[in-house]
Amino acid sequence: MGQTLKRWVRGVALLPAFALTGALAYAQDADLEARLSALEESVSGSASSYVDNSYLFLIGGLIVMFMAAGFMCLEVGLVRSKNAAMQSMKNVLLYAVAGLMFWVVGYNMAYPGSTILGGLLGTTPGIWSGGDLGVESDAGYAPASDWFFQMVFVATAASIVSGTVAERVKLWGFLAFTAVLTAFIYPVVVSWEWGGGYLDSAWAFSDFAGSTLVHSVGGWAALVGAIIIGPRTGKYFGKQVHAMPGSNIPLAGLGTFILWFGWFGFNGASQLAAGTVPDINSVAQIFANTNMGAVGGTLGAMIMTAILYKGKVDATMVFNGALGGLVSITAEPLTPTMGQAVLIGGVGGVLAVLTVPLLDKVKIDDVVGAIPVHLVCGIWGTMIVPATHGMAIVPNEAGDPNFVGQFVGVALTAVFVSAASLVVWLALKFTIGVRATEEEEMMGMDKAEVGLEAYPDFTAG
Amino acid sequence: MGQTLKRWVRGVALLPAFALTGALAYAQDADLEARLSALEESVSGSASSYVDNSYLFLIGGLIVMFMAAGFMCLEVGLVRSKNAAMQSMKNVLLYAVAGLMFWVVGYNMAYPGSTILGGLLGTTPGIWSGGDLGVESDAGYAPASDWFFQMVFVATAASIVSGTVAERVKLWGFLAFTAVLTAFIYPVVVSWEWGGGYLDSAWAFSDFAGSTLVHSVGGWAALVGAIIIGPRTGKYFGKQVHAMPGSNIPLAGLGTFILWFGWFGFNGASQLAAGTVPDINSVAQIFANTNMGAVGGTLGAMIMTAILYKGKVDATMVFNGALGGLVSITAEPLTPTMGQAVLIGGVGGVLAVLTVPLLDKVKIDDVVGAIPVHLVCGIWGTMIVPATHGMAIVPNEAGDPNFVGQFVGVALTAVFVSAASLVVWLALKFTIGVRATEEEEMMGMDKAEVGLEAYPDFTAG
Amino acid sequence: MGQTLKRWVRGVALLPAFALTGALAYAQDADLEARLSALEESVSGSASSYVDNSYLFLIGGLIVMFMAAGFMCLEVGLVRSKNAAMQSMKNVLLYAVAGLMFWVVGYNMAYPGSTILGGLLGTTPGIWSGGDLGVESDAGYAPASDWFFQMVFVATAASIVSGTVAERVKLWGFLAFTAVLTAFIYPVVVSWEWGGGYLDSAWAFSDFAGSTLVHSVGGWAALVGAIIIGPRTGKYFGKQVHAMPGSNIPLAGLGTFILWFGWFGFNGASQLAAGTVPDINSVAQIFANTNMGAVGGTLGAMIMTAILYKGKVDATMVFNGALGGLVSITAEPLTPTMGQAVLIGGVGGVLAVLTVPLLDKVKIDDVVGAIPVHLVCGIWGTMIVPATHGMAIVPNEAGDPNFVGQFVGVALTAVFVSAASLVVWLALKFTIGVRATEEEEMMGMDKAEVGLEAYPDFTAG
Repeated sequence: MGQTLKRWVRGVALLPAFALTGALAYAQDADLEARLSALEESVSGSASSYVDNSYLFLIGGLIVMFMAAGFMCLEVGLVRSKNAAMQSMKNVLLYAVAGLMFWVVGYNMAYPGSTILGGLLGTTPGIWSGGDLGVESDAGYAPASDWFFQMVFVATAASIVSGTVAERVKLWGFLAFTAVLTAFIYPVVVSWEWGGGYLDSAWAFSDFAGSTLVHSVGGWAALVGAIIIGPRTGKYFGKQVHAMPGSNIPLAGLGTFILWFGWFGFNGASQLAAGTVPDINSVAQIFANTNMGAVGGTLGAMIMTAILYKGKVDATMVFNGALGGLVSITAEPLTPTMGQAVLIGGVGGVLAVLTVPLLDKVKIDDVVGAIPVHLVCGIWGTMIVPATHGMAIVPNEAGDPNFVGQFVGVALTAVFVSAASLVVWLALKFTIGVRATEEEEMMGMDKAEVGLEAYPDFTAG
Repeated sequence: MGQTLKRWVRGVALLPAFALTGALAYAQDADLEARLSALEESVSGSASSYVDNSYLFLIGGLIVMFMAAGFMCLEVGLVRSKNAAMQSMKNVLLYAVAGLMFWVVGYNMAYPGSTILGGLLGTTPGIWSGGDLGVESDAGYAPASDWFFQMVFVATAASIVSGTVAERVKLWGFLAFTAVLTAFIYPVVVSWEWGGGYLDSAWAFSDFAGSTLVHSVGGWAALVGAIIIGPRTGKYFGKQVHAMPGSNIPLAGLGTFILWFGWFGFNGASQLAAGTVPDINSVAQIFANTNMGAVGGTLGAMIMTAILYKGKVDATMVFNGALGGLVSITAEPLTPTMGQAVLIGGVGGVLAVLTVPLLDKVKIDDVVGAIPVHLVCGIWGTMIVPATHGMAIVPNEAGDPNFVGQFVGVALTAVFVSAASLVVWLALKFTIGVRATEEEEMMGMDKAEVGLEAYPDFTAG
Repeated sequence: MGQTLKRWVRGVALLPAFALTGALAYAQDADLEARLSALEESVSGSASSYVDNSYLFLIGGLIVMFMAAGFMCLEVGLVRSKNAAMQSMKNVLLYAVAGLMFWVVGYNMAYPGSTILGGLLGTTPGIWSGGDLGVESDAGYAPASDWFFQMVFVATAASIVSGTVAERVKLWGFLAFTAVLTAFIYPVVVSWEWGGGYLDSAWAFSDFAGSTLVHSVGGWAALVGAIIIGPRTGKYFGKQVHAMPGSNIPLAGLGTFILWFGWFGFNGASQLAAGTVPDINSVAQIFANTNMGAVGGTLGAMIMTAILYKGKVDATMVFNGALGGLVSITAEPLTPTMGQAVLIGGVGGVLAVLTVPLLDKVKIDDVVGAIPVHLVCGIWGTMIVPATHGMAIVPNEAGDPNFVGQFVGVALTAVFVSAASLVVWLALKFTIGVRATEEEEMMGMDKAEVGLEAYPDFTAG
C-alpha cells in the first residue's frame, strides 16, 4: 500500500514528464499495433485449427479408404478359390461406384440444406460441387476434406453387403444395388442423424461414428440381399449345413488387421475436430477405446469358441470377434472408460460368434459373417450408448442419448433400409438378374463372369 | 458528433488527469509489450506452418513409400508362381538401391544449385547432406522431409520398370539399370521442371505430381528395356499370343488398393504446403479429385472390357484401369472439377485397356501392363493439363500451361529417357547380361537366381 | 541526433497535446489489449504444439500398430502351410492380449510415479485410467496418445517371440507367456530407461526407440522360449539341418514392407515432440536415417548372401537384412549422418545373415530368424550409439551415451529378461504345457488347435 502511494506521489510530481511518456506511449503503441497486426495475420494465415481439423479428415479418411482393401482381403480370404478373382474385382468396383454416386447425389442428400416430412428427407439433392479454395470455410475445415471423409464411409457400408452375398451374386446386379445404396438408401439414413434431421432433432438419437448409420445400414441391406438371392447351391441339405471353408485364411487375417487399423480413422476422425486441447484429447481417447473395444471382441470370441469347440479356437471367429468389438464401440467410442470399452467390445465378440449358427438355422447364407458382425453388433453398440451417458430412458431437455431414442433410431433404420433394399433387390431380380445360374456357380464366378482364375497355378483347372 | 465533441471538451478539462493516464498507458504498454513478445515467441516457436508443411511431406512420403509394397503385390500377383519370390525380392532391392543412389547423387542432381546448357543439366551433383536441425529452413519445411518425399518418388519410377521386364530379366542387370535410372536419368528430367530448369523456364511446362516426370520416365525406361531384353520365351508364336496368366489375382487386387491409397500422398503432398487455408483446401480438393480420377479409370476399364469381352469384366484390366486413371489425373489434380477428373481418369482407363493388344501386336512383352498404365496415361494426363487452365496453345506471359509446352516436355522426356535407357540397357546386355537363359526361364527365376520357391507347398516341385 | 533533439523540443512545446495523446494511447491500449487477449486465447486454444505432439503419437502409433499386420504376414509367409492359420490367428490374439495387459498393469509399471531398489522397480503399478479430456496435460500431449503409442510398442516385443517359437508352440501356453511378457517383463525393462529409472540415472544408457528395450527384450524372450520348447520335430538329425521352407514368400515380402513402413512411426514418433522447428526437423531426419539403415541392411544382406551362395540372393535373407538394418538404427536414428546410417544398418544386415547358421549349429530352431534380427542387431545397434555421440567410454558429467553404460544396459536386460522368461516358460511347461505333441505337429497346428485349414483348396487334405 505504501509502495502504491509512493508511486502515486512520484507520479503527480512528475506530471510533465508523464505527459512526455504519453507521447512515447503513443509512438510505442504504433509499434505494438504493427507487431500485433503482423502476428494476427500470421496466426490467422497459418490457420492452425483449420489445418488441424482438415488434417484429421484427410488422414482419417485416408485410412478409412484403406479399409476397402481390408474388406477385400477379408472377403477374398473367406470365399472359395474359384470365386476369389471376382471378389477382388468386385471390391474395387464397388468402391468406385460408391465414390461416383456419393458425388453425384449422395453427399448433398446426406447433408441437405433443408428437409421436408419432418426431417425425413432432404430437399437439395444433387452434385457436390466443392468450395472456394481461397476462402476459409465457415465449417472450420476444408470442404473437400469432409466430402472425402464422408465418401469413404459410404464405401464401407457397400463393402459389408459384398461379403454376405458373395459366391453367387451376379456382378451387374450387385453393382446396380451398390449404386442405389450409396446414392439414396445410405444418404437418407445419414441425413436423419448427422445431417441434423428427424432422429437427431426429435429423439436425441446418438451414433458417434456409425454403428447404426454405417454398419447396420450395410447389415440390413446384406440381410435382405441374402434372403432374396438365396443360399449358395449345396450349402443347406434339409437340416444339414455344409461347410464351405474360406480358401485363404492368412489373407482374411491381414484383412482383419487392415480393418482394425482403418477403424482408428473411422472413429477417431469422427470427433470432427482436432485443433483444440479438448478435441485432440478426445481423439486420443477414442483411439485407446477403439483399440480396447477390438481387444474385448477378439478375446470374447476366443473364449466363446474355446468353450463351444472344446479348447480349439476358430480363426475366422476370432477375426469376426475383433470386427464385432470394433462395430460395437463405434456408436460411442469417447465416453466409456477403457474397461467399459473392453466390456462393450467383448459382448460384441460373443454376439458375433453366437449369431452365426442362428443364421444357418434359418438358412440365411452369409458367406463372411457380415450380418453377425455389422448388423447384430451395430444394434448392440447403438443400444448401449445411454449406459455411458447417464442412463436416460426417454429424451430429456439436456438432449442426452436415451434408450427409447436409440431404439427408435435402430427400428426406423431397420424398417427403411429393409424395405428400400427389398424393393431394389426385387426390381433387379426381375430385370437384369441378381443370381448366377447353378452351372455358373459350380464353375465359379471367376470363370463365369471374370474370365480368368484367381490362382491358376495352384488349383486344378 | 456531439458525443465526440463532449469527449474532447471533457478531455481538455481533464488534462492533468490525462497526463497521468499517459503514465499508466506507458506502464500498461510495457505489460502489453511483454505479453506480445511472449506470444510472438510462442507462435514462432510452435512454427505452425513449418510443422504443417513438414507433416505433409512426411505423411505423404510415408504412404508413397508404401506404394513400393503396392507395386510388389501387383507385380507378384501378375507373374507366374515360379517367378514370384524373385519378383518380391526384386521390389525390396530396387527400393533400397533407389534410396541409396538418390542420396549419393540423385537429389542434388534433381534440385541443383545452378545449371548449364540452358537449364538442361545441373552443376552441383553429389551427396545430399541434410540441413541444420536447429534452424528453420528458408524453404518453409524440414529439409529431410523434402528429401524423403522426393526419394519415394524416384522409387516409384524404378518400380514401374520392374513389372514390365519381369520373369526373364537377370537380377544383377536389373539392379544395375535401377542404379543408373535413379541416380541420373530420373533426376535429370526432374531438374528440367521441378528443379526449375529448361522445361519450366522456357516452356511453362506443367506437371503437378509427375505424370510425365515420374510415370512416363518409368514407362519409357520400361519400354526400351522390354525391347532390348525381348519377350518371354513362348509368349509369341508367329501371330499368336500365348496368355501367361498371373498366379495370384487377389494379391494384385490388394496391390491396386495399396497404390490407390498411396496416391493420395503422391498427389496431395505435391501441393508442397499445408499450413494456410488455401493450401489445405487445395490438398483436400486434390484428394477428392485423385479419387475421382481413379473412379473414372476403374469404370472406364470396366465398361471397355465388358464391351470387348461380351459382358465379362477382366479383373486385371479393372486394376490397371484404376491405376491408369490415377496416372492420368496426376499431372493436374487440382484445377479440374470433380466431373472433369472422372472424365480425365476415364479416358485413361480406356486407353490402358486399348493399348495392351497394340503392344502384343508389335511383340513387346509387358508382363503387368505398366507401359499402357504409366507411359500412355502419363502422356494423356500431361497433354490434357491446359484444358483446365485456359486452353493456351503456346507459352504466354502469364506462364500458363500450354499445349505446345506440354508436347515439348513429353517429347523431350521421350527422347532423353529412351536414348539414355537404350545406352544403359545395351551396355549391361554386353557386359553383365540382362536376360536369363531359356533354361533358367523355364525353371523359373526363383530357382535360378533366388534359390527358393515362392509357394513350395502348393506347386509341384 | 539533431532530429532527436528537435523531436524533444517539439514534444515539450506540445505538452498539452501530448497529455491528450496520453489519453488516446490509453484508449488505444484498451483496444490493443482486447486484440491481444483474443489472439492469446486463439493461439492457446488452437494449442498448436500440443496438437502437433499428439498427432505425432497418434499417427506414429497408428502405423506402428500396423506393424502387427507386418509381423503376421512375415511369420505366416515363413511357416509351412499347415501352420499358417494358427500363425495368423496367434498374431491377432497376441496383439489383443498385449493391449489388455498393458492397460491393466504394464503402462503404469513402465512409467511409475516412484521407484524402489535404486530405480529397478516402479511402485505404482495398476490400471491406467486416462486423463481429464478438458485439460491441457502438463506432458505437452494428449494422455491417451501416449498410452496408445507405448501400447503398440509392447505388442511389437510380443510379436517377435511369436515368430521364433512358431509351428510347435501350444496356443494357450504362448498366450499365457505373452500376458506375462507384456504386463511385467517388458514394462520393468522400459521403466529402467524411458521411465527414468536405474539405467537412465546411473549409466546414462541411451536407447532412442528401443533396439534394446523393445527388440532385445523380445529377442531374449524368444531365445529362451526356443530353448525350452525345443526345435521342430525333424529339424535336426545329428549334424544335419533339415530345411523347412516358408510356404508363402510373397506374403513375407509384403510383411517386410509393412514393417519398414511402420518403422517410420516407431523411430520418428520416438522424438516425442513435433511442435517446434528443431523437433520437426529431427523427426524428418529420423525418417531419412531410418530409411538409410534399412537400405544398408537390405544391401548388406544381399551382398553377403551373394558371396555365400555364389551369386544367388536368398529372398528371406534380404527381408531379414532389411529388418536387421532397421533394428540396428533404432537405438539412435537421429545423430548419425546418412552415410553412418547406411553403415550401421549394413553391419546389421550382415550380422542377421551370419547368425542364422550359428543358431542352427547349436540346434536352436528360430522359424523366422527373429533372434538374428531382433536380438543380435538390437545389441549391435545399442552398442554403437556412443560412436555418433562423442565416443565416451564411461558415464560423464554431460550425461553422454557411453560404451560401458550401453554394455551395462544390454547385459542387465539380458540377465533379467532371460531369467524371467526362463521362469515363466518353465512354469508354463510344467502346468498348461507349451509344446504340441509330435502327432499334432505332424498334422499341423491348424488342424490340431484351430480346427480349419489355411489354404484348403490348394493343399491335399
